Amino acid sequence: MALRMSTLFLRTLREDPADAELPGHRLLVRAGYVRRAAPGIYTWLPLGLRVLEKVKGIVREEMDAIGDQEIAFPSLLPKEPYEATNRWTEYGDNLFRLTDRKGAEMLLGPTHEEMFTLAVKDLYTSYKDLPLSLYQMLPKYRDEARPRAGVLRGREFIMKDAYSFDVDEAGLEAAYQRHRDAYVRIFDRLGFEYVAVHADSGAMGGSASEEFLAVMESGEDTFVRDDSGYAANVEAVRMPVQELPADEAARAALEEGVPAAHVEDTPDTPTIETLVASANADHPRADGREWTAADTLKNVVVMLVHPDGTREPLAIGLPGDREVDAKRLEAQVSPAEVEPFEAADFERYPALAKGYIGPGVLGEESTTGIRYLLDPLVTPGSTWVTGADEHGKHVFDLVYGRDFTADGTIHAATIHEGDPSPTGQGTLRLARGVEMGHIFQLGTKYAEALGLKVLDENGKLVTVHMGSYGIGVTRAVGVVAETHHDEIGLVWPRELSPVDLHVVATGKDAGVLEKAEELTTALEAQGVSVLLDDRPKVSPGVKFKDAELVGVPTILVVGRGLADGLVEIKDRATGESRQVAVDEAVAEVVAEIRGRA
Amino acid sequence: MALRMSTLFLRTLREDPADAELPGHRLLVRAGYVRRAAPGIYTWLPLGLRVLEKVKGIVREEMDAIGDQEIAFPSLLPKEPYEATNRWTEYGDNLFRLTDRKGAEMLLGPTHEEMFTLAVKDLYTSYKDLPLSLYQMLPKYRDEARPRAGVLRGREFIMKDAYSFDVDEAGLEAAYQRHRDAYVRIFDRLGFEYVAVHADSGAMGGSASEEFLAVMESGEDTFVRDDSGYAANVEAVRMPVQELPADEAARAALEEGVPAAHVEDTPDTPTIETLVASANADHPRADGREWTAADTLKNVVVMLVHPDGTREPLAIGLPGDREVDAKRLEAQVSPAEVEPFEAADFERYPALAKGYIGPGVLGEESTTGIRYLLDPLVTPGSTWVTGADEHGKHVFDLVYGRDFTADGTIHAATIHEGDPSPTGQGTLRLARGVEMGHIFQLGTKYAEALGLKVLDENGKLVTVHMGSYGIGVTRAVGVVAETHHDEIGLVWPRELSPVDLHVVATGKDAGVLEKAEELTTALEAQGVSVLLDDRPKVSPGVKFKDAELVGVPTILVVGRGLADGLVEIKDRATGESRQVAVDEAVAEVVAEIRGRA
Repeated sequence: MALRMSTLFLRTLREDPADAELPGHRLLVRAGYVRRAAPGIYTWLPLGLRVLEKVKGIVREEMDAIGDQEIAFPSLLPKEPYEATNRWTEYGDNLFRLTDRKGAEMLLGPTHEEMFTLAVKDLYTSYKDLPLSLYQMLPKYRDEARPRAGVLRGREFIMKDAYSFDVDEAGLEAAYQRHRDAYVRIFDRLGFEYVAVHADSGAMGGSASEEFLAVMESGEDTFVRDDSGYAANVEAVRMPVQELPADEAARAALEEGVPAAHVEDTPDTPTIETLVASANADHPRADGREWTAADTLKNVVVMLVHPDGTREPLAIGLPGDREVDAKRLEAQVSPAEVEPFEAADFERYPALAKGYIGPGVLGEESTTGIRYLLDPLVTPGSTWVTGADEHGKHVFDLVYGRDFTADGTIHAATIHEGDPSPTGQGTLRLARGVEMGHIFQLGTKYAEALGLKVLDENGKLVTVHMGSYGIGVTRAVGVVAETHHDEIGLVWPRELSPVDLHVVATGKDAGVLEKAEELTTALEAQGVSVLLDDRPKVSPGVKFKDAELVGVPTILVVGRGLADGLVEIKDRATGESRQVAVDEAVAEVVAEIRGRA
Repeated sequence: MALRMSTLFLRTLREDPADAELPGHRLLVRAGYVRRAAPGIYTWLPLGLRVLEKVKGIVREEMDAIGDQEIAFPSLLPKEPYEATNRWTEYGDNLFRLTDRKGAEMLLGPTHEEMFTLAVKDLYTSYKDLPLSLYQMLPKYRDEARPRAGVLRGREFIMKDAYSFDVDEAGLEAAYQRHRDAYVRIFDRLGFEYVAVHADSGAMGGSASEEFLAVMESGEDTFVRDDSGYAANVEAVRMPVQELPADEAARAALEEGVPAAHVEDTPDTPTIETLVASANADHPRADGREWTAADTLKNVVVMLVHPDGTREPLAIGLPGDREVDAKRLEAQVSPAEVEPFEAADFERYPALAKGYIGPGVLGEESTTGIRYLLDPLVTPGSTWVTGADEHGKHVFDLVYGRDFTADGTIHAATIHEGDPSPTGQGTLRLARGVEMGHIFQLGTKYAEALGLKVLDENGKLVTVHMGSYGIGVTRAVGVVAETHHDEIGLVWPRELSPVDLHVVATGKDAGVLEKAEELTTALEAQGVSVLLDDRPKVSPGVKFKDAELVGVPTILVVGRGLADGLVEIKDRATGESRQVAVDEAVAEVVAEIRGRA
C-alpha cells in the first residue's frame, strides 16, 4: 500500500528547528522523520520509523548470517547484577536509576553485559554448549550530560548489542573476528565513510578493542591515521615512551652542554603566551633563536574524583604548545572522573603558585605529595623553561632527568597534525568521526564478576571468555542524515530510503492523478514501495520542494508532459531528470532502482 | 536458515519453575520461551521472541489495513504532559517515576495518550488534516502491585496502542467501529476464545468502551453474559435502579402490611451467619419461613482515599447474602482508592457499632455524616433485618423508604449466577477472562486538557475527538500459552508457532541426520520454517519430550523407518502420527501445514 502525502502523518517545515545544531538533524526534523519529545529523547514519525526499520533489517540480517541469536532483555533491570560488576556506581550520573513501589532499586539498562552473562550462566554448564553468540536490538538509556545533535547522541536510543561466549581465548578471538567481518559488511551497506580505529587503552596496535567511526567533520571523536593504515582514537594513541636511563653515567650524559638551571624574574607571566613574550624580551637565548611555547613546560593540576568519592590531585607536565586532551586524560584515569582544580583547592596547597607551578613542588616525594606524571613528549634530557613556584619567576635550562623527575608517564597531550606516527611510519593526520560501533574482547571480566563458568573437557570449571559488540542503530540514521544531504534536503542511499520511489502528481488535470495512481499500482506490483504525492490543492512547486526535502533517491513526476505521453524520472542526488514514455515508465523506474546491470 | 537444537540458546527444564502459578506460564519457562529477569519483568529467549514477533506481525497487518500509521514514541517521558492531564498523580504507585541528572522529573510511559495528543497538536491545524489514526507497538511500564502469571501481567510489557483523531463525534464513532472490526480480525487470528464486553462505567449498553476478554478459567476479570448476546465486565453491569417514590401517598403505600420496625436482642451476632442463626432461633418469622442472609441488610464501611490524599468514609448497604465486589466498587469511586476501615477509624466514630451498624447512624444528615449509598438490590419498600447500632441488637421489619433512606445508589454488590440480566432478557451467567484489548471513545478529554483544537469548515476552533485502542501484545503470548497446551507441553496455533515444523532426527545412523538435513533444506525452499533437532548424543525419548514441550504443531520424525523409505508426520495437538514415503514427505508436510483445501 502506497504511502500518500494526502494522509501521511507528516508536515514538512520550511524553518529550521531551534534546537538542531547539525544540518542532517535539522533536515530530519524539517522533513518529518523525527520530533523531539524531551532533551535527547525523540519520537520517530512514520518516515523515520521506516528508515530505522531498514537499518535494523540490515543489522539483523548480518548478525543472523554469522549465527548470532536474537533475544530480548527488558530495559527495566534489577540493581543487583550491576552492583556485582560495580557498574551501578561506576556509571555515575549517566545511569537512570529508579525505585519501585516496594522500594527495590532498579535501573534503565545502559548496556546489558550483566544480563547476558547471567542468562548464559542460567542455561549453560558445559564447554560443549559453547561457542554461543547472542544479541538484542532494543532501547538503551544513558543520562548523557550533553545530549547532542538529535538522534546522534540521545538519552534513549536503540543499540544492537551482541555478546560472544567461548571457552577460551582462541575462541574469543575467532568470535571477535567473525563479528568484525559482519560489522564491515554492515557499515559497507549503511553507506557512509567509516574507519575502524584501535580503541584499546592498554595494548597499542592490539586487536582487543576497535571502534568503527563514521568519518564526519562534525563528529565528536577525534582520531588519527597514518599512511600505513594505522588508525586510532586519540584516547588509544600511545606515543613511544623513552625511559630515563637507570644508570648514573647515562644520566650524567643528559647534563652535557646545558647550563645549570637558573631562576629568572618573569613578572606577570601566568600564561604560556606572556611567558614566551617575557622570555624573548628579557632573557634572550644565547643562540639567538626565539623562545616558543614548545620550549616551556606546562604543569597542569586537575582533581580526580574516584568512584568511591575520594578526591586526589594530579599534576601533568607537558610542552607549553599542547593542551591536556580531556578524552585522552579521562581514558587514562578512568574510572576516576576529572574535575578542575579550584581556587579552594589551591588554598589547601599554598606551595602551588598558580601560573608558576614547577616540578619542584610536584611528585609523591615532594612537599605537596601531589602525583606528577609527564607526557612522553617530555623526553629524557630535554631542556625547559618552567615555573619556579613563586609568582613572577620561572626556571630556565631545567633538564628532565638532571634537574627533575616525575612519578610516571601519562599520554595526555593533544596530538597535532604531523606528529610522528607511533607505528614509526610517517606522520599522523587528524580527522573527526562519530562512534558507530565498538567491538571489544571483554575477556573474563564479567564472567568472573558474575560467576559464569563451564566445565571443560577435563571436568574442570573454567571461566568463560566474552566479547561484546555494539552498534548504534538510531545513531546510524543520524549519521546517514549528516553525511547524505545537500542544501535543499536529505538524499537517502537506496537501501535506507523510507520508500523506493516518490511519485509526484502535478497539475489539476484529473487524468494526471489517475495515471499517477495507475503507475503506482503497477510499480507496487513489481515490489517497488511508493510515496505518492496525491495532494489535490498543493502547487507543483511545493510538491517538488517537499520531495527534495524528504530525499527519496528517485522521483517520478507525472504532470503536464502526460499530454505528450511523457513522464519524468528525476535523480534526487544529481538533480538530473529525463523524460520517458509513459508506457515505459514502470520498466525504466524499476531499472533505475534495481540497477541496470 | 533452520534453527538447530544443537546450537539454539535453549535448555528445556523438566522441573516447574518455583514462581509460576499458571500452567501456560510454567510451560513457557520450561520450554525456554521466556525467563524472569525481575518480578513482573521477563526476558524473551529465541523461541519466545519468534512467537512475540508473530503476534506483532498480525497486529501490525490489521492496523495497517485500516490505514493506521505506525510511529514510535520514547518510553522515557517528560512529566509535564502527564501533569496537564493529572495522570502524573492519578496513576499513583503504578507509575514508574524517576529524576534525571538535572533534576527533571520523568516517567516510564504507562500509555501514551498525552504524547499522541501533543504530536497531533504539533503538526495539524485543520479539519482537512483529519481523520487520522496512529499507533505504536512498544514497551509500556506499570508498577503493578501484584505482577502475575509471567507475561500475563508484567511490569514491562508490550502494548499496541492506537489513537484516532476526528473532527466530530460521528467521525469518532466511525473510527471506533473501524478499530473494533480490526480487533475482531486480530483476535480471530490469535486463535483463543474471546468475548467483547461492555466496559463503560457510565452508559449501559452504549458503545463508548468495550473490552476484549480472552475467556479463561484463570482470568482475573469476571464478566457476565446473558442469552441475548449481552456481555459486560462486572464493573460495567448496571442493575435497574428503582427510585423511591417522590410523593407522600406512594411512600405511604410502602408501609402496608409490614409491622413497625422493632429492635430485638441478638446477642453475639456480629456476622451475617450468626445473625441468621440467632434470628431463626429467637425471632422466628410469623409466616414460618426461615430467615436467610438475603433478608438481612449489611452495611459495610470503607475508607476512600482521594487523589489529593484526603480520606473519606463511605457506607454501602447491600443484602447480606452478597459481598461488596471490589472491582465494581473501585470502578465507581475511581479515581479515589479504597482502603479498609480500620480499628483506629472506628475509634473516631464511636456511633458505629462494629458488626451492628444500621442505617440510623449513616447518611450525610446523620450524626456521623458518613455518606451512605445503597446497592439497587435494596429496592423501595423492601423489608430488612439490620444492625441497631448497639452491640447485640438488631432491628427487624425495617422498610426502605419508610424507616430509612440513603444518599444515593452504588452498584457494588457481587453479581450472582442467575441474577436477572439488566437487558431484561433472561439471567446472567458468570465467566472469567483476561483483558486482551480495550477500545474506548475518549471524546475530548485529552484534547481538552492539552489544547488539541483544529479549525473547522467555518474557521472556528473545535476540540478534536479522540478514541484509544489498546492490545496487550506480550500478554497475548501468555494467553495463547494458557489456552493452548496439554499436560506435556505447549500446542501452538499454526499462525503463532515459532516455526512451522519441528524435525526430529533419531538414531545413530549417519544417514538419518543427512536425510533430515536434506528434507529440512527442501522444506525451507518451499517457505517452511524449521527447527531441526540435530543433537548427536541425545536419546530419541528426550528429543520427543522436548518436541512435545516446545509445541510446534507439526513434527516430522526421521528415524528408524528410513530403512524402509518411511518418515513419520506427527500432529502435536492430537498426538496422531502417520507414516509417509520419504519421497513424498515434503509435499505431505507442506499440505499439512498449509491445509489441503
